[in-house]
Amino acid sequence: MLGCEWIIDAYGCDPQRLRELAVMVHLCDTIVEELDLTVVGKPTWHQFPGQAGVTGMYLLSESHLACHTYPEVGVATLNLYCCHRIQEQPWAELLRRQLRASHCEIVCIPRGQHAQAGSSEQSLAPLPISPDQEARR
Amino acid sequence: MLGCEWIIDAYGCDPQRLRELAVMVHLCDTIVEELDLTVVGKPTWHQFPGQAGVTGMYLLSESHLACHTYPEVGVATLNLYCCHRIQEQPWAELLRRQLRASHCEIVCIPRGQHAQAGSSEQSLAPLPISPDQEARR
Repeated sequence: MLGCEWIIDAYGCDPQRLRELAVMVHLCDTIVEELDLTVVGKPTWHQFPGQAGVTGMYLLSESHLACHTYPEVGVATLNLYCCHRIQEQPWAELLRRQLRASHCEIVCIPRGQHAQAGSSEQSLAPLPISPDQEARR
Repeated sequence: MLGCEWIIDAYGCDPQRLRELAVMVHLCDTIVEELDLTVVGKPTWHQFPGQAGVTGMYLLSESHLACHTYPEVGVATLNLYCCHRIQEQPWAELLRRQLRASHCEIVCIPRGQHAQAGSSEQSLAPLPISPDQEARR
């Protein structure tokens, strides 16, 4: 197995907080800090215009963290994909505290759970082909 | 509901291709193009040193696309979170063609499904894709 991905949907959030870039940056930075994750490069953030939400992505040594907000329905969605197993986290408490979420739906999905070390290297010869040589549909 | 997330684990991939940044960029660009997605800002890519893999993230108007590769076990993992519903895609065929994947495991997870009044009360459990989307050997 290559780790797991936490898929978190937080409902009943304060719409104003979901529109504030600083609030969402603080949330993601808190997750990175509390789980001792390693950010690769610079996080990417985008604030959609008007009353829309924000979205952010962190490339991690451990895989990735992403968030999207939907102020119009009071929802924030997060993904944390971590290539080593992490303990269950008090996600609902964190999201209640920082976004005023009333409840969360959380699942943890194993990734690459059938991966076997060495199998691919042994069964397949390297076949370096330039992407330009790919036949497109 | 705020869309769905495709979670795709491709096994038996050619390790050399999983190490080539250009191959993985081409794969993600193909997905963006074929699904007519809109990239926000510049995609973020990172190539890990030595014989390790690559990782990339695209912030989209529709949400995000992310990929990670594990050449040591011949695995690529992808996430495509799209805030509007997209048709089922021939993921296994695409990954066979571009990465030489022998088989894929694919689930589609609804996101924010309780965001609207009267929405489904289904659980957030991963939904298996129809058999013809699976390319098990």
